[in-house]
Amino acid sequence: MPSRLAIIGPGLLGASIALAVSEKKARGQICEIRVWARSEKRAQEVRERGFADFVSTRLNEVVANSDLIIFCVPTDVMPALAQEMLPAISPTAIITDVGSVKAPVVKSLSQIFAKHGKFIGSHPMAGSEQTGMNAARADLFENAVCIVTPEPETDPQANIVVSEFWQMLGSSVRALAPAEHDKIVALISHLPHLAASLMVNVAQTELPGSLDFCGTGFLDTTRIASGPPEMWTEIFANNQAALRPAIQAMIAKLQQADKILANADSAAMNTILTEAKTQRDRLKSKKSEN
Amino acid sequence: MPSRLAIIGPGLLGASIALAVSEKKARGQICEIRVWARSEKRAQEVRERGFADFVSTRLNEVVANSDLIIFCVPTDVMPALAQEMLPAISPTAIITDVGSVKAPVVKSLSQIFAKHGKFIGSHPMAGSEQTGMNAARADLFENAVCIVTPEPETDPQANIVVSEFWQMLGSSVRALAPAEHDKIVALISHLPHLAASLMVNVAQTELPGSLDFCGTGFLDTTRIASGPPEMWTEIFANNQAALRPAIQAMIAKLQQADKILANADSAAMNTILTEAKTQRDRLKSKKSEN
Repeated sequence: MPSRLAIIGPGLLGASIALAVSEKKARGQICEIRVWARSEKRAQEVRERGFADFVSTRLNEVVANSDLIIFCVPTDVMPALAQEMLPAISPTAIITDVGSVKAPVVKSLSQIFAKHGKFIGSHPMAGSEQTGMNAARADLFENAVCIVTPEPETDPQANIVVSEFWQMLGSSVRALAPAEHDKIVALISHLPHLAASLMVNVAQTELPGSLDFCGTGFLDTTRIASGPPEMWTEIFANNQAALRPAIQAMIAKLQQADKILANADSAAMNTILTEAKTQRDRLKSKKSEN
Repeated sequence: MPSRLAIIGPGLLGASIALAVSEKKARGQICEIRVWARSEKRAQEVRERGFADFVSTRLNEVVANSDLIIFCVPTDVMPALAQEMLPAISPTAIITDVGSVKAPVVKSLSQIFAKHGKFIGSHPMAGSEQTGMNAARADLFENAVCIVTPEPETDPQANIVVSEFWQMLGSSVRALAPAEHDKIVALISHLPHLAASLMVNVAQTELPGSLDFCGTGFLDTTRIASGPPEMWTEIFANNQAALRPAIQAMIAKLQQADKILANADSAAMNTILTEAKTQRDRLKSKKSEN
Protein backbone atom coordinates (compact mmCIF):
# COMPACT_ATOMS: atom_id res chain seq x y z
CA MET A 1 0.00 0.00 0.00
CA PRO A 2 1.44 3.38 -0.98
CA SER A 3 2.42 5.82 1.70
CA ARG A 4 2.54 9.08 -0.24
CA LEU A 5 -0.46 9.99 -2.39
CA ALA A 6 -0.50 12.69 -5.06
CA ILE A 7 -3.94 13.94 -6.14
CA ILE A 8 -3.86 15.82 -9.43
CA GLY A 9 -6.82 18.20 -9.28
CA PRO A 10 -8.93 18.90 -6.17
CA GLY A 11 -12.38 18.79 -7.82
CA LEU A 12 -15.30 16.68 -6.61
CA LEU A 13 -13.43 13.39 -7.01
CA GLY A 14 -9.94 14.53 -6.06
CA ALA A 15 -11.13 16.37 -2.94
CA SER A 16 -13.39 13.43 -2.00
CA ILE A 17 -10.40 11.08 -2.23
CA ALA A 18 -8.44 13.42 0.04
CA LEU A 19 -11.31 13.64 2.53
CA ALA A 20 -11.87 9.88 2.46
CA VAL A 21 -8.20 9.11 3.05
CA SER A 22 -8.04 11.72 5.81
CA GLU A 23 -11.24 10.84 7.62
CA LYS A 24 -11.34 7.09 7.22
CA LYS A 25 -8.35 6.79 9.52
CA ALA A 26 -6.40 5.36 6.65
CA ARG A 27 -3.55 7.60 7.57
CA GLY A 28 -1.71 4.63 8.96
CA GLN A 29 -1.34 3.52 5.37
CA ILE A 30 -1.11 6.90 3.65
CA CYS A 31 1.33 9.12 5.47
CA GLU A 32 1.06 12.13 3.18
CA ILE A 33 -1.60 13.65 0.92
CA ARG A 34 -0.14 15.90 -1.76
CA VAL A 35 -2.42 17.94 -4.03
CA TRP A 36 -1.78 19.70 -7.32
CA ALA A 37 -4.13 22.57 -8.13
CA ARG A 38 -4.16 24.47 -11.42
CA SER A 39 -4.19 27.92 -9.85
CA GLU A 40 -2.92 29.55 -6.67
CA LYS A 41 -6.51 30.48 -5.80
CA ARG A 42 -7.54 26.82 -5.91
CA ALA A 43 -4.43 25.80 -3.99
CA GLN A 44 -5.33 28.31 -1.29
CA GLU A 45 -8.85 26.83 -1.05
CA VAL A 46 -7.32 23.40 -0.48
CA ARG A 47 -5.06 24.80 2.23
CA GLU A 48 -8.06 26.41 3.93
CA ARG A 49 -10.00 23.15 3.85
CA GLY A 50 -7.03 21.46 5.48
CA PHE A 51 -7.33 18.06 3.83
CA ALA A 52 -3.87 17.96 2.30
CA ASP A 53 -0.36 17.91 3.77
CA PHE A 54 1.20 19.63 0.77
CA VAL A 55 -0.49 21.74 -1.89
CA SER A 56 1.14 23.38 -4.87
CA THR A 57 0.56 24.56 -8.42
CA ARG A 58 4.01 23.18 -9.32
CA LEU A 59 3.29 19.71 -10.67
CA ASN A 60 6.79 18.29 -10.31
CA GLU A 61 7.00 19.25 -6.65
CA VAL A 62 3.71 17.49 -5.97
CA VAL A 63 4.52 14.21 -7.72
CA ALA A 64 8.18 13.92 -6.70
CA ASN A 65 8.62 10.92 -4.38
CA SER A 66 4.90 10.08 -4.51
CA ASP A 67 4.07 6.37 -4.51
CA LEU A 68 0.54 6.68 -5.96
CA ILE A 69 -0.50 9.45 -8.35
CA ILE A 70 -4.17 9.88 -9.22
CA PHE A 71 -5.32 12.06 -12.11
CA CYS A 72 -8.61 13.74 -11.13
CA VAL A 73 -8.78 16.28 -13.96
CA PRO A 74 -10.74 16.23 -17.24
CA THR A 75 -9.38 13.50 -19.50
CA ASP A 76 -8.40 15.92 -22.25
CA VAL A 77 -5.85 17.64 -20.03
CA MET A 78 -4.35 14.42 -18.62
CA PRO A 79 -1.80 13.71 -21.41
CA ALA A 80 -0.14 17.14 -21.17
CA LEU A 81 0.11 16.91 -17.37
CA ALA A 82 1.46 13.35 -17.68
CA GLN A 83 4.18 14.47 -20.06
CA GLU A 84 5.05 17.38 -17.81
CA MET A 85 5.48 15.23 -14.69
CA LEU A 86 7.55 12.48 -16.36
CA PRO A 87 10.98 13.84 -15.31
CA ALA A 88 9.90 14.13 -11.67
CA ILE A 89 8.18 10.83 -10.95
CA SER A 90 9.75 7.86 -9.25
CA PRO A 91 10.36 4.82 -11.53
CA THR A 92 8.28 2.76 -9.10
CA ALA A 93 5.40 5.25 -8.88
CA ILE A 94 1.99 3.83 -9.60
CA ILE A 95 -0.32 6.07 -11.61
CA THR A 96 -4.06 5.92 -12.17
CA ASP A 97 -6.87 8.24 -13.23
CA VAL A 98 -10.58 8.62 -12.54
CA GLY A 99 -11.76 9.32 -16.10
CA SER A 100 -15.25 8.17 -17.09
CA VAL A 101 -14.14 6.85 -20.50
CA LYS A 102 -11.24 4.43 -20.47
CA ALA A 103 -10.08 3.27 -23.90
CA PRO A 104 -8.67 6.63 -25.13
CA VAL A 105 -7.22 7.59 -21.73
CA VAL A 106 -5.63 4.20 -21.12
CA LYS A 107 -4.11 4.19 -24.59
CA SER A 108 -2.65 7.65 -24.19
CA LEU A 109 -1.40 7.40 -20.59
CA SER A 110 -0.07 3.83 -20.99
CA GLN A 111 2.19 5.07 -23.78
CA ILE A 112 3.37 8.10 -21.82
CA PHE A 113 4.13 6.07 -18.69
CA ALA A 114 5.47 3.00 -20.56
CA LYS A 115 9.01 3.58 -19.28
CA HIS A 116 8.31 5.75 -16.24
CA GLY A 117 6.12 4.41 -13.47
CA LYS A 118 3.29 1.91 -13.74
CA PHE A 119 -0.09 3.00 -15.07
CA ILE A 120 -3.51 1.38 -14.74
CA GLY A 121 -6.86 3.07 -15.45
CA SER A 122 -9.62 3.40 -12.84
CA HIS A 123 -13.20 4.55 -12.94
CA PRO A 124 -14.78 5.02 -9.52
CA MET A 125 -18.49 5.04 -10.39
CA ALA A 126 -19.35 7.62 -7.82
CA GLY A 127 -20.26 11.19 -8.48
CA SER A 128 -22.89 13.75 -8.19
CA GLU A 129 -24.67 16.24 -10.39
CA GLN A 130 -22.70 18.75 -8.35
CA THR A 131 -19.07 19.51 -9.01
CA GLY A 132 -16.06 20.97 -7.33
CA MET A 133 -14.35 20.83 -4.00
CA ASN A 134 -17.38 22.11 -2.09
CA ALA A 135 -19.44 19.08 -3.15
CA ALA A 136 -16.72 16.66 -1.97
CA ARG A 137 -17.68 13.99 0.56
CA ALA A 138 -15.54 11.57 2.53
CA ASP A 139 -18.08 8.80 1.90
CA LEU A 140 -18.42 9.35 -1.85
CA PHE A 141 -16.75 6.04 -2.70
CA GLU A 142 -18.40 3.91 -0.03
CA ASN A 143 -20.55 1.16 -1.51
CA ALA A 144 -19.72 2.37 -5.01
CA VAL A 145 -18.42 0.19 -7.79
CA CYS A 146 -14.92 1.04 -9.01
CA ILE A 147 -13.81 -0.45 -12.31
CA VAL A 148 -10.10 -0.89 -12.94
CA THR A 149 -9.01 -1.51 -16.52
CA PRO A 150 -5.84 -3.59 -16.70
CA GLU A 151 -4.42 -4.58 -20.08
CA PRO A 152 -2.17 -7.56 -20.80
CA GLU A 153 0.91 -5.36 -20.39
CA THR A 154 -0.27 -3.71 -17.14
CA ASP A 155 2.07 -4.25 -14.19
CA PRO A 156 0.35 -6.70 -11.80
CA GLN A 157 1.50 -4.74 -8.76
CA ALA A 158 -0.17 -1.58 -10.10
CA ASN A 159 -3.41 -3.55 -10.37
CA ILE A 160 -3.09 -4.80 -6.79
CA VAL A 161 -2.15 -1.46 -5.26
CA VAL A 162 -4.83 0.54 -7.08
CA SER A 163 -7.52 -2.08 -6.41
CA GLU A 164 -6.65 -2.15 -2.73
CA PHE A 165 -6.70 1.64 -2.63
CA TRP A 166 -10.29 1.84 -3.90
CA GLN A 167 -11.32 -0.97 -1.56
CA MET A 168 -9.83 0.99 1.33
CA LEU A 169 -12.18 3.85 0.38
CA GLY A 170 -15.12 1.46 0.58
CA SER A 171 -15.62 0.62 -3.09
CA SER A 172 -16.24 -2.74 -4.64
CA VAL A 173 -13.60 -3.23 -7.34
CA ARG A 174 -14.17 -4.98 -10.68
CA ALA A 175 -11.66 -5.41 -13.51
CA LEU A 176 -12.64 -4.94 -17.15
CA ALA A 177 -10.81 -4.37 -20.42
CA PRO A 178 -10.97 -0.64 -21.33
CA ALA A 179 -13.23 -1.13 -24.37
CA GLU A 180 -15.58 -3.39 -22.41
CA HIS A 181 -15.77 -0.73 -19.70
CA ASP A 182 -16.66 1.90 -22.27
CA LYS A 183 -19.52 -0.19 -23.70
CA ILE A 184 -20.94 -0.74 -20.23
CA VAL A 185 -20.81 2.91 -19.16
CA ALA A 186 -22.37 3.95 -22.47
CA LEU A 187 -25.39 1.84 -21.47
CA ILE A 188 -25.65 2.54 -17.74
CA SER A 189 -24.30 6.07 -17.50
CA HIS A 190 -23.87 7.99 -20.74
CA LEU A 191 -27.15 7.05 -22.47
CA PRO A 192 -29.10 7.68 -19.23
CA HIS A 193 -27.45 11.08 -18.87
CA LEU A 194 -28.25 12.01 -22.47
CA ALA A 195 -31.81 10.68 -22.20
CA ALA A 196 -32.44 12.54 -18.93
CA SER A 197 -31.22 15.77 -20.55
CA LEU A 198 -33.30 15.23 -23.68
CA MET A 199 -36.44 14.49 -21.62
CA VAL A 200 -36.07 17.91 -20.00
CA ASN A 201 -35.61 19.47 -23.44
CA VAL A 202 -38.56 17.58 -24.98
CA ALA A 203 -40.92 18.80 -22.23
CA GLN A 204 -39.62 22.36 -22.48
CA THR A 205 -39.83 22.37 -26.29
CA GLU A 206 -43.17 20.63 -26.72
CA LEU A 207 -45.08 22.49 -24.02
CA PRO A 208 -43.29 25.34 -22.25
CA GLY A 209 -44.56 25.42 -18.68
CA SER A 210 -45.13 21.66 -18.47
CA LEU A 211 -42.03 21.31 -16.29
CA ASP A 212 -43.76 23.36 -13.59
CA PHE A 213 -46.05 20.38 -12.99
CA CYS A 214 -43.35 17.79 -12.45
CA GLY A 215 -43.33 15.47 -9.46
CA THR A 216 -40.72 13.41 -7.69
CA GLY A 217 -40.60 10.79 -10.48
CA PHE A 218 -39.49 13.36 -13.06
CA LEU A 219 -37.10 14.98 -10.60
CA ASP A 220 -35.40 11.64 -9.88
CA THR A 221 -35.34 10.59 -13.52
CA THR A 222 -33.72 13.83 -14.62
CA ARG A 223 -31.51 14.60 -11.61
CA ILE A 224 -28.34 13.82 -13.55
CA ALA A 225 -29.30 16.38 -16.21
CA SER A 226 -27.98 18.99 -13.76
CA GLY A 227 -24.45 17.64 -14.29
CA PRO A 228 -21.79 19.92 -15.78
CA PRO A 229 -22.37 20.26 -19.56
CA GLU A 230 -18.68 20.68 -20.43
CA MET A 231 -17.70 17.48 -18.62
CA TRP A 232 -20.48 15.45 -20.22
CA THR A 233 -19.83 16.88 -23.67
CA GLU A 234 -16.25 15.65 -23.33
CA ILE A 235 -17.36 12.25 -22.00
CA PHE A 236 -19.85 11.77 -24.84
CA ALA A 237 -17.27 12.79 -27.46
CA ASN A 238 -14.62 10.47 -25.99
CA ASN A 239 -17.05 7.57 -25.88
CA GLN A 240 -19.00 8.18 -29.08
CA ALA A 241 -17.90 4.81 -30.46
CA ALA A 242 -19.87 3.03 -27.74
CA LEU A 243 -22.50 5.69 -27.08
CA ARG A 244 -23.85 5.91 -30.62
CA PRO A 245 -24.91 2.23 -30.78
CA ALA A 246 -26.56 2.65 -27.36
CA ILE A 247 -28.49 5.69 -28.61
CA GLN A 248 -29.54 3.77 -31.72
CA ALA A 249 -30.74 0.85 -29.57
CA MET A 250 -32.79 3.30 -27.47
CA ILE A 251 -34.31 4.83 -30.61
CA ALA A 252 -35.30 1.33 -31.80
CA LYS A 253 -36.96 0.54 -28.44
CA LEU A 254 -38.89 3.85 -28.52
CA GLN A 255 -40.02 3.17 -32.10
CA GLN A 256 -41.19 -0.28 -31.04
CA ALA A 257 -43.13 1.20 -28.10
CA ASP A 258 -44.73 3.79 -30.37
CA LYS A 259 -45.87 1.04 -32.73
CA ILE A 260 -47.26 -0.99 -29.83
CA LEU A 261 -49.31 2.03 -28.72
CA ALA A 262 -50.54 2.60 -32.26
CA ASN A 263 -51.67 -1.04 -32.38
CA ALA A 264 -53.21 -0.86 -28.87
CA ASP A 265 -51.21 -4.01 -28.07
CA SER A 266 -51.40 -3.88 -24.28
CA ALA A 267 -50.00 -7.39 -23.87
CA ALA A 268 -46.79 -6.36 -25.65
CA MET A 269 -46.49 -3.16 -23.58
CA ASN A 270 -47.06 -5.10 -20.39
CA THR A 271 -44.25 -7.50 -21.38
CA ILE A 272 -41.82 -4.62 -21.95
CA LEU A 273 -42.65 -2.95 -18.64
CA THR A 274 -42.53 -6.26 -16.77
CA GLU A 275 -39.06 -7.04 -18.18
CA ALA A 276 -37.86 -3.62 -17.06
CA LYS A 277 -39.40 -3.94 -13.60
CA THR A 278 -37.90 -7.40 -13.13
CA GLN A 279 -34.38 -6.16 -13.88
CA ARG A 280 -34.80 -2.91 -11.94
CA ASP A 281 -36.19 -4.69 -8.87
CA ARG A 282 -33.15 -6.99 -8.94
CA LEU A 283 -30.88 -3.92 -8.71
CA LYS A 284 -32.93 -2.50 -5.86
CA SER A 285 -32.46 -5.61 -3.80
CA LYS A 286 -28.73 -5.56 -4.55
CA LYS A 287 -28.06 -1.95 -3.58
CA SER A 288 -28.72 0.18 -0.59
CA GLU A 289 -30.51 3.16 -2.03
CA ASN A 290 -30.59 5.32 1.03
CA MET B 1 -65.92 21.44 3.21
CA PRO B 2 -67.42 17.93 3.19
CA SER B 3 -67.93 16.11 6.45
CA ARG B 4 -68.29 12.52 5.23
CA LEU B 5 -65.67 11.14 2.89
CA ALA B 6 -66.02 7.94 0.84
CA ILE B 7 -62.78 6.44 -0.49
CA ILE B 8 -63.34 3.95 -3.30
CA GLY B 9 -60.37 1.59 -3.14
CA PRO B 10 -57.76 1.48 -0.33
CA GLY B 11 -54.62 1.19 -2.47
CA LEU B 12 -51.57 3.45 -2.20
CA LEU B 13 -53.52 6.63 -2.95
CA GLY B 14 -56.80 5.74 -1.24
CA ALA B 15 -55.11 4.58 1.95
CA SER B 16 -52.77 7.58 1.92
CA ILE B 17 -55.79 9.90 1.69
CA ALA B 18 -57.36 8.10 4.66
CA LEU B 19 -54.12 8.34 6.66
CA ALA B 20 -53.64 12.00 5.75
CA VAL B 21 -57.18 12.93 6.73
CA SER B 22 -56.87 10.94 9.97
CA GLU B 23 -53.44 12.10 11.00
CA LYS B 24 -53.46 15.68 9.85
CA LYS B 25 -56.06 16.56 12.45
CA ALA B 26 -58.45 17.41 9.69
CA ARG B 27 -61.09 15.47 11.51
CA GLY B 28 -62.72 18.67 12.56
CA GLN B 29 -63.69 19.06 8.92
CA ILE B 30 -64.12 15.39 7.98
CA CYS B 31 -66.23 13.63 10.58
CA GLU B 32 -66.27 10.21 8.94
CA ILE B 33 -63.97 8.20 6.65
CA ARG B 34 -65.81 5.47 4.74
CA VAL B 35 -63.88 2.98 2.58
CA TRP B 36 -65.02 0.59 -0.13
CA ALA B 37 -62.76 -2.43 -0.72
CA ARG B 38 -63.23 -4.93 -3.52
CA SER B 39 -62.90 -8.01 -1.28
CA GLU B 40 -63.64 -8.93 2.30
CA LYS B 41 -59.93 -9.72 2.76
CA ARG B 42 -58.98 -6.20 1.76
CA ALA B 43 -61.79 -4.75 3.88
CA GLN B 44 -60.44 -6.66 6.88
CA GLU B 45 -56.95 -5.25 6.25
CA VAL B 46 -58.40 -1.73 6.34
CA ARG B 47 -60.18 -2.52 9.61
CA GLU B 48 -56.93 -3.80 11.09
CA ARG B 49 -55.07 -0.65 10.04
CA GLY B 50 -57.80 1.38 11.75
CA PHE B 51 -57.79 4.37 9.45
CA ALA B 52 -61.48 4.22 8.51
CA ASP B 53 -64.69 4.63 10.46
CA PHE B 54 -66.67 2.36 8.15
CA VAL B 55 -65.40 -0.29 5.72
CA SER B 56 -67.45 -2.46 3.43
CA THR B 57 -67.42 -4.33 0.13
CA ARG B 58 -70.96 -3.07 -0.47
CA LEU B 59 -70.54 0.04 -2.57
CA ASN B 60 -73.96 1.55 -1.96
CA GLU B 61 -73.57 1.35 1.80
CA VAL B 62 -70.24 3.15 1.58
CA VAL B 63 -71.36 6.02 -0.64
CA ALA B 64 -74.81 6.57 0.86
CA ASN B 65 -74.94 10.00 2.55
CA SER B 66 -71.28 10.71 1.69
CA ASP B 67 -70.51 14.31 0.81
CA LEU B 68 -67.27 13.67 -1.08
CA ILE B 69 -66.58 10.46 -2.99
CA ILE B 70 -63.07 9.79 -4.34
CA PHE B 71 -62.37 7.04 -6.87
CA CYS B 72 -58.94 5.55 -6.10
CA VAL B 73 -59.18 2.49 -8.36
CA PRO B 74 -57.76 1.83 -11.84
CA THR B 75 -59.49 4.08 -14.36
CA ASP B 76 -60.86 1.17 -16.38
CA VAL B 77 -63.03 -0.03 -13.49
CA MET B 78 -64.31 3.45 -12.53
CA PRO B 79 -67.27 3.63 -14.96
CA ALA B 80 -68.83 0.35 -13.78
CA LEU B 81 -68.49 1.34 -10.12
CA ALA B 82 -69.90 4.79 -10.91
CA GLN B 83 -72.96 3.27 -12.57
CA GLU B 84 -73.42 0.90 -9.66
CA MET B 85 -73.39 3.64 -7.02
CA LEU B 86 -75.74 6.05 -8.86
CA PRO B 87 -78.93 4.99 -7.03
CA ALA B 88 -77.28 5.41 -3.64
CA ILE B 89 -75.53 8.76 -3.86
CA SER B 90 -76.87 12.04 -2.58
CA PRO B 91 -77.85 14.54 -5.30
CA THR B 92 -75.46 17.02 -3.70
CA ALA B 93 -72.54 14.57 -3.44
CA ILE B 94 -69.28 15.78 -4.95
CA ILE B 95 -67.31 13.12 -6.79
CA THR B 96 -63.69 13.09 -7.96
CA ASP B 97 -61.06 10.53 -8.96
CA VAL B 98 -57.27 10.24 -8.82
CA GLY B 99 -56.64 8.81 -12.31
CA SER B 100 -53.39 9.68 -14.05
CA VAL B 101 -55.05 10.30 -17.43
CA LYS B 102 -57.95 12.74 -17.41
CA ALA B 103 -59.66 13.21 -20.79
CA PRO B 104 -61.19 9.69 -21.07
CA VAL B 105 -62.08 9.46 -17.36
CA VAL B 106 -63.59 12.93 -17.20
CA LYS B 107 -65.64 12.28 -20.33
CA SER B 108 -66.97 9.00 -19.00
CA LEU B 109 -67.63 9.99 -15.39
CA SER B 110 -69.06 13.42 -16.27
CA GLN B 111 -71.72 11.70 -18.37
CA ILE B 112 -72.54 9.14 -15.67
CA PHE B 113 -72.81 11.76 -12.94
CA ALA B 114 -74.47 14.42 -15.15
CA LYS B 115 -77.74 14.20 -13.24
CA HIS B 116 -76.55 12.67 -9.97
CA GLY B 117 -73.97 14.49 -7.91
CA LYS B 118 -71.26 16.84 -9.13
CA PHE B 119 -68.10 15.44 -10.73
CA ILE B 120 -64.69 17.01 -11.27
CA GLY B 121 -61.48 15.16 -12.16
CA SER B 122 -58.36 15.30 -9.99
CA HIS B 123 -54.81 14.08 -10.43
CA PRO B 124 -52.72 14.27 -7.29
CA MET B 125 -49.19 14.02 -8.71
CA ALA B 126 -47.90 11.98 -5.85
CA GLY B 127 -47.05 8.36 -5.91
CA SER B 128 -44.35 5.84 -5.55
CA GLU B 129 -42.91 2.95 -7.46
CA GLN B 130 -44.51 0.92 -4.67
CA THR B 131 -48.19 0.12 -4.59
CA GLY B 132 -50.87 -0.92 -2.15
CA MET B 133 -52.04 -0.07 1.30
CA ASN B 134 -48.73 -1.00 2.92
CA ALA B 135 -46.91 1.71 0.96
CA ALA B 136 -49.43 4.36 2.04
CA ARG B 137 -48.13 7.47 3.81
CA ALA B 138 -49.98 10.28 5.56
CA ASP B 139 -47.61 12.83 3.99
CA LEU B 140 -47.86 11.52 0.42
CA PHE B 141 -49.69 14.62 -0.81
CA GLU B 142 -47.67 17.20 1.07
CA ASN B 143 -45.80 19.57 -1.23
CA ALA B 144 -47.16 17.69 -4.24
CA VAL B 145 -48.93 19.29 -7.17
CA CYS B 146 -52.55 18.28 -7.61
CA ILE B 147 -54.19 19.09 -10.92
CA VAL B 148 -57.96 19.48 -11.03
CA THR B 149 -59.61 19.38 -14.44
CA PRO B 150 -62.78 21.46 -14.53
CA GLU B 151 -64.74 21.77 -17.77
CA PRO B 152 -67.11 24.59 -18.72
CA GLU B 153 -70.06 22.57 -17.39
CA THR B 154 -68.36 21.59 -14.09
CA ASP B 155 -70.21 22.74 -11.00
CA PRO B 156 -68.17 25.60 -9.46
CA GLN B 157 -68.81 24.30 -5.95
CA ALA B 158 -67.32 20.90 -6.87
CA ASN B 159 -64.20 22.72 -8.04
CA ILE B 160 -63.96 24.70 -4.79
CA VAL B 161 -64.61 21.73 -2.49
CA VAL B 162 -62.23 19.35 -4.26
CA SER B 163 -59.49 21.99 -4.57
CA GLU B 164 -59.77 22.83 -0.87
CA PHE B 165 -59.67 19.13 -0.02
CA TRP B 166 -56.31 18.62 -1.78
CA GLN B 167 -54.97 21.83 -0.26
CA MET B 168 -55.96 20.50 3.18
CA LEU B 169 -53.74 17.47 2.45
CA GLY B 170 -50.83 19.80 1.71
CA SER B 171 -50.94 19.87 -2.08
CA SER B 172 -50.59 22.82 -4.36
CA VAL B 173 -53.67 22.82 -6.65
CA ARG B 174 -53.63 23.85 -10.30
CA ALA B 175 -56.56 23.76 -12.73
CA LEU B 176 -56.17 22.54 -16.31
CA ALA B 177 -58.49 21.37 -19.06
CA PRO B 178 -58.44 17.54 -19.23
CA ALA B 179 -56.71 17.38 -22.64
CA GLU B 180 -54.08 19.92 -21.56
CA HIS B 181 -53.43 17.86 -18.43
CA ASP B 182 -52.93 14.75 -20.55
CA LYS B 183 -50.38 16.47 -22.80
CA ILE B 184 -48.43 17.67 -19.79
CA VAL B 185 -48.33 14.31 -18.00
CA ALA B 186 -47.32 12.60 -21.25
CA LEU B 187 -44.21 14.82 -21.20
CA ILE B 188 -43.33 14.87 -17.51
CA SER B 189 -44.55 11.47 -16.34
CA HIS B 190 -45.48 8.96 -19.03
CA LEU B 191 -42.55 9.49 -21.41
CA PRO B 192 -40.08 9.48 -18.47
CA HIS B 193 -41.59 6.23 -17.19
CA LEU B 194 -41.38 4.61 -20.61
CA ALA B 195 -37.84 5.89 -21.21
CA ALA B 196 -36.66 4.69 -17.78
CA SER B 197 -38.06 1.23 -18.51
CA LEU B 198 -36.54 1.13 -21.98
CA MET B 199 -33.12 2.20 -20.65
CA VAL B 200 -33.15 -0.81 -18.36
CA ASN B 201 -34.15 -3.03 -21.28
CA VAL B 202 -31.52 -1.53 -23.64
CA ALA B 203 -28.73 -2.23 -21.14
CA GLN B 204 -29.98 -5.73 -20.46
CA THR B 205 -30.40 -6.51 -24.18
CA GLU B 206 -27.21 -4.94 -25.48
CA LEU B 207 -24.85 -6.26 -22.81
CA PRO B 208 -26.28 -8.66 -20.24
CA GLY B 209 -24.46 -8.06 -16.98
CA SER B 210 -23.92 -4.36 -17.62
CA LEU B 211 -26.63 -3.53 -15.08
CA ASP B 212 -24.45 -5.02 -12.34
CA PHE B 213 -22.14 -2.02 -12.72
CA CYS B 214 -24.77 0.67 -12.29
CA GLY B 215 -24.32 3.51 -9.85
CA THR B 216 -26.64 5.95 -8.11
CA GLY B 217 -27.24 7.95 -11.30
CA PHE B 218 -28.73 4.95 -13.10
CA LEU B 219 -30.66 3.90 -10.00
CA ASP B 220 -32.27 7.34 -9.70
CA THR B 221 -32.93 7.66 -13.42
CA THR B 222 -34.67 4.27 -13.58
CA ARG B 223 -36.34 4.17 -10.14
CA ILE B 224 -39.81 4.60 -11.65
CA ALA B 225 -39.27 1.54 -13.87
CA SER B 226 -40.12 -0.50 -10.75
CA GLY B 227 -43.68 0.76 -10.95
CA PRO B 228 -46.54 -1.71 -11.52
CA PRO B 229 -46.59 -2.80 -15.20
CA GLU B 230 -50.36 -3.33 -15.36
CA MET B 231 -51.08 0.18 -14.09
CA TRP B 232 -48.62 1.81 -16.47
CA THR B 233 -49.79 -0.26 -19.43
CA GLU B 234 -53.29 1.07 -18.76
CA ILE B 235 -52.04 4.65 -18.34
CA PHE B 236 -50.06 4.52 -21.58
CA ALA B 237 -53.01 3.04 -23.49
CA ASN B 238 -55.42 5.66 -22.11
CA ASN B 239 -53.05 8.48 -22.99
CA GLN B 240 -51.63 7.20 -26.26
CA ALA B 241 -52.99 10.25 -28.09
CA ALA B 242 -50.65 12.50 -26.12
CA LEU B 243 -47.90 9.99 -25.40
CA ARG B 244 -47.14 9.05 -29.00
CA PRO B 245 -46.19 12.61 -30.04
CA ALA B 246 -44.00 12.84 -26.93
CA ILE B 247 -42.24 9.58 -27.87
CA GLN B 248 -41.74 10.83 -31.41
CA ALA B 249 -40.27 14.09 -30.11
CA MET B 250 -37.87 12.08 -27.93
CA ILE B 251 -36.83 9.93 -30.92
CA ALA B 252 -36.14 13.11 -32.92
CA LYS B 253 -33.96 14.52 -30.10
CA LEU B 254 -32.00 11.25 -29.86
CA GLN B 255 -31.49 11.17 -33.63
CA GLN B 256 -30.21 14.75 -33.48
CA ALA B 257 -27.80 13.85 -30.66
CA ASP B 258 -26.54 10.82 -32.61
CA LYS B 259 -25.86 13.05 -35.62
CA ILE B 260 -24.04 15.59 -33.45
CA LEU B 261 -21.78 12.81 -32.11
CA ALA B 262 -21.14 11.53 -35.63
CA ASN B 263 -20.11 15.05 -36.63
CA ALA B 264 -18.01 15.57 -33.48
CA ASP B 265 -19.91 18.83 -33.00
CA SER B 266 -19.09 19.45 -29.35
CA ALA B 267 -20.47 22.99 -29.41
CA ALA B 268 -23.91 21.68 -30.38
CA MET B 269 -23.82 18.95 -27.71
CA ASN B 270 -22.78 21.49 -25.11
CA THR B 271 -25.74 23.69 -26.08
CA ILE B 272 -28.18 20.78 -25.66
CA LEU B 273 -26.80 19.79 -22.26
CA THR B 274 -26.67 23.40 -21.09
CA GLU B 275 -30.33 23.94 -22.05
CA ALA B 276 -31.28 20.81 -20.08
CA LYS B 277 -29.20 21.80 -17.07
CA THR B 278 -30.67 25.31 -17.05
CA GLN B 279 -34.23 24.01 -16.95
CA ARG B 280 -33.46 21.21 -14.50
CA ASP B 281 -31.61 23.54 -12.12
CA ARG B 282 -34.63 25.82 -12.13
CA LEU B 283 -36.81 22.90 -10.93
CA LYS B 284 -34.29 22.05 -8.23
CA SER B 285 -34.48 25.53 -6.77
CA LYS B 286 -38.29 25.40 -6.87
CA LYS B 287 -38.76 22.08 -5.14
CA SER B 288 -37.62 20.52 -1.94
CA GLU B 289 -36.10 17.26 -3.07
CA ASN B 290 -35.67 15.63 0.28
